[in-house]
Parts: sequence; C-alpha cells; structure tokens
Amino acid sequence: MLYIIGLGLSDEFDITVKGLEAIKTCDRVYLEAYTSILTVETSRLETFYGKKVIIADRDKVETEADEILKDADKVNVAFLVVGDPYGATTHTDLVVRARELSIPVTSIHNASIMNAIGACGLQLYNFGQTVSIVFFTETWRPDSFTLASTRILAKGCILYVSLQAAQQLIEIEEKRGEGAYHPSKTLAVGVARLGSSTQKIVCATLEQLASEEIDLGAPLHSLVLVGRQLHFLEAEILRGFAYDLESLNSILIDEYKLTE
Amino acid sequence: MLYIIGLGLSDEFDITVKGLEAIKTCDRVYLEAYTSILTVETSRLETFYGKKVIIADRDKVETEADEILKDADKVNVAFLVVGDPYGATTHTDLVVRARELSIPVTSIHNASIMNAIGACGLQLYNFGQTVSIVFFTETWRPDSFTLASTRILAKGCILYVSLQAAQQLIEIEEKRGEGAYHPSKTLAVGVARLGSSTQKIVCATLEQLASEEIDLGAPLHSLVLVGRQLHFLEAEILRGFAYDLESLNSILIDEYKLTE
Repeated sequence: MLYIIGLGLSDEFDITVKGLEAIKTCDRVYLEAYTSILTVETSRLETFYGKKVIIADRDKVETEADEILKDADKVNVAFLVVGDPYGATTHTDLVVRARELSIPVTSIHNASIMNAIGACGLQLYNFGQTVSIVFFTETWRPDSFTLASTRILAKGCILYVSLQAAQQLIEIEEKRGEGAYHPSKTLAVGVARLGSSTQKIVCATLEQLASEEIDLGAPLHSLVLVGRQLHFLEAEILRGFAYDLESLNSILIDEYKLTE
Repeated sequence: MLYIIGLGLSDEFDITVKGLEAIKTCDRVYLEAYTSILTVETSRLETFYGKKVIIADRDKVETEADEILKDADKVNVAFLVVGDPYGATTHTDLVVRARELSIPVTSIHNASIMNAIGACGLQLYNFGQTVSIVFFTETWRPDSFTLASTRILAKGCILYVSLQAAQQLIEIEEKRGEGAYHPSKTLAVGVARLGSSTQKIVCATLEQLASEEIDLGAPLHSLVLVGRQLHFLEAEILRGFAYDLESLNSILIDEYKLTE
C-alpha cells in the first residue's frame, strides 16, 4: 500500500492520528520537500515517528517514482506531504504510476492553506480562483495573473501566497491600470504562519500591508483580497483583525457599502 | 482557552494529534452537531477521548453561547467541528462572543470537503464558487444557485453537495435553458464518503450520475462539475475514476478538446 499522508500546516503534531498510525506500519517513509515548507526540522519528525524520513526532492519524485513505489504491493510505503495530499499540488505522476503498477493508494487528508484560510473570517464558499505569486526579481516581474484577479474580484475573494504580494500587486496595477483593486480602497487580509502558535492575521488596505508599518514576521504568508460582496458577519470578524479599526470602518462604509 | 477543533472527514482517528492533546486538557467538550455529520457515533468519540461529549445543536450554540464559554478564561473548553473549524460554516457568533468576553481562542485545523475534494484529481486552484444544493421536495425546488454556476463554469469547476444533485441539476437546466451544462456532454465527478475506507469516486456524465446505474452508496456525497479548461494530467486522473472509459474518452475529445 502507498499511503499519501497530509502533515497539516505547521509542526509534527498536526498529523492526524490515522496518519501517524499508518506511518508506524510503513517500511519506508518519504517526505515531499519541493512544494511546501514545514516549520519544523525533519529530525523532529523522525523522533516523533520513530522512523527514518527520506527527503524526496522534485527530481526523486519525477525520475525515481519506481524507487519510491518499490515493493509497495507487498509492504507499506508512506509519502508525506505538507498540508493536504491534494492541497495545492497533486501528486499526479506518483498516483498514476502506482495505478499502472497495480499498487493500492490510500490518501489521508489534512488541513491545507486552501481550507484553513477560512480562519481569516471570509466564507470559503465565496472564494474565487487561487493564484500563486512568484517573487519578483530585478529583471523578472511577471504580471499575467492579474488577468485572473480582474475577472474574479467582482464576486468574491482571491488568495495569493507570497511574502511581498501586497507590494507586487500595487506595482502591477499601476502598470496595467485595470482597476482590479486600489491600493488605499481595497481591503486585504495578511495571514502568516497559519495554524502555528505564532499565527498572525491582519486586515488592512493593500497599501498598508505593503508598507513597513505592518510586519507579519517569518513566512509562510498568504494574502486574501477582500471581494466587494462582503457579509456583515464577515466584516465583524475582519474588524477583530484590524490594523487600524477607524480606517477599516471608513472603508467598509465608503467602499464596501456596509453600515456600522 | 476556547479550542475550536476540526475533526476531519470521517471517523474518530481523523483528529490531529494536536487536537487530541488539546481535548485532554479540557474541562468540557462540545460537539457541534448541526452543520455536518460524522460517520461515527458520539459514544466512540467519548471512548477515544476518555471524555464526555456534549452535543451542541444550533439552538445551544446560538442562544447558550455563554454557557459554552462559561469559565473559559480560567479552564479549557473544546468545541469540536466536523471537517475544519472554518470549512463550510464559520462559527462566527461563538468567536465574536468569546472575543467580547476576552476569552482566548485557538483553532486547530483539519481536512474538510473544501480541500480534500482535490482527491478527485482536479486542481483546487481552478475551482470556482461552491454551492450547497438543498434537497428538492414535491413543492420546493429552488433553482437560483444556477446563476452562480453559469458564470463560473467557463473557467473551472464547481462543487455541489447533495445526494440527488445530478438529477436536480438536469431538471433545473431543462427549466431555465441557460446552457450552463449539458446532461450527456458535461462531465462530473461523484464523490462519496471521502476520506473513509469505503470512499468512492466516479467520473461520468451528469446524465449517467443521475441514473440508477451508478450507485454511490451511503452519504455524504459531493458532485464536481468539470470545467471546460481541463489539463491533460487532470484528465488522466479522471480516467482512473471512469464509469465508462470509452464514453469518457469520447467526451474528453469531442467536448473538452483533449487529445488522447
């Protein structure tokens, strides 16, 4: 059996009881290490599981799938994934290859940023498409994802994952002028280290979130653009995360047409 | 401290190690029982936790929030939620009330249908808005959610949660004629008991899924409408869930413009 096991958001204790029990039956334990970052060292996982953990980088998963799957029709093998197995990246190749080899696959699910982001107070039902923003460099500053955001903002919220996302969004809007959002009129929620004991959630304008006044601290970071159709209960939760409650209330009234 | 703890998708072993440890420190343990259904009896939870579990129906949470929060500034209280605490329903009132009483709140996240549905092979990034479909009765057959689906299908997928969803969608399209989807040309994925040992995933046309040929078995059920922009790797995973591979391949070529 190949177990694909989600580790959840933050540390070794975020695994499910079911996932932990499955690991204990496995002959080999791989940790997928190229799409996400756990906030703990691999050695802490090894101590907690009582098993050696083999790091599987992108090369290994793509070119050595057969090594990972070796004998998995006879013994149990665990493939650990930060978040949920199908959270942001599907491990399609590995699943397809296992299927070709008639190896049974069991997925053990867990929280990922894709559902836990609901902690910011906005209804997941109303979220639009999700976009990853690459880090800008001096010479590489892609802006094509704004096409998606422009379409989606009218109906809900959109989630970006990047440390510098707020600043980059402002720069892209200045360049393209599509009116997808406005630095001082569009609200956004900055979320850092979700699910950890140092989790931080701040609601402010894009401009404020891009400034040095707001320091979310260490990664991982997410940014949610607040769509125009905001429910008053969503607004109430956002107020609890306000960077500046007075200016937040003004924007809720003037731009989001909510009464106090 | 008020702990809001996600129980995950299926049984008592889907709780995280962190969630289980938190429960063990709690003086009172409430189980939210009105928005979701766990597939196990409460007594199994009580045995596993070694704690009495108090059922909190909608009335209790709305009218007796202060009873749930009583002394939570001095002792720990757990509020258990099937799925993730913020998966489908935010427990806004309870969080807002705790904040008013200066009671600290810690959320312990878990998988919910909102992220685990990625198991069907479609990229979560591309999902559109999510809609709950109410059960039709003889006299009450609301169809207003098709407004949302019509807008969204062009770009991705949409998830419905209902046992009879496929049949209801066909009926609504016949009535409204918006061309949002087509009984024999639109692919959908039926997902039953996700995360349990009896999980079932079937990809077929809406018409096939609505027919008696396909029996997904006991609830809970979800239905994903497959959007027009399908990646070939997504299609490859869908083939593994095919009800009828030959007709699925024809539709992928004719309607979704994918080559084999």
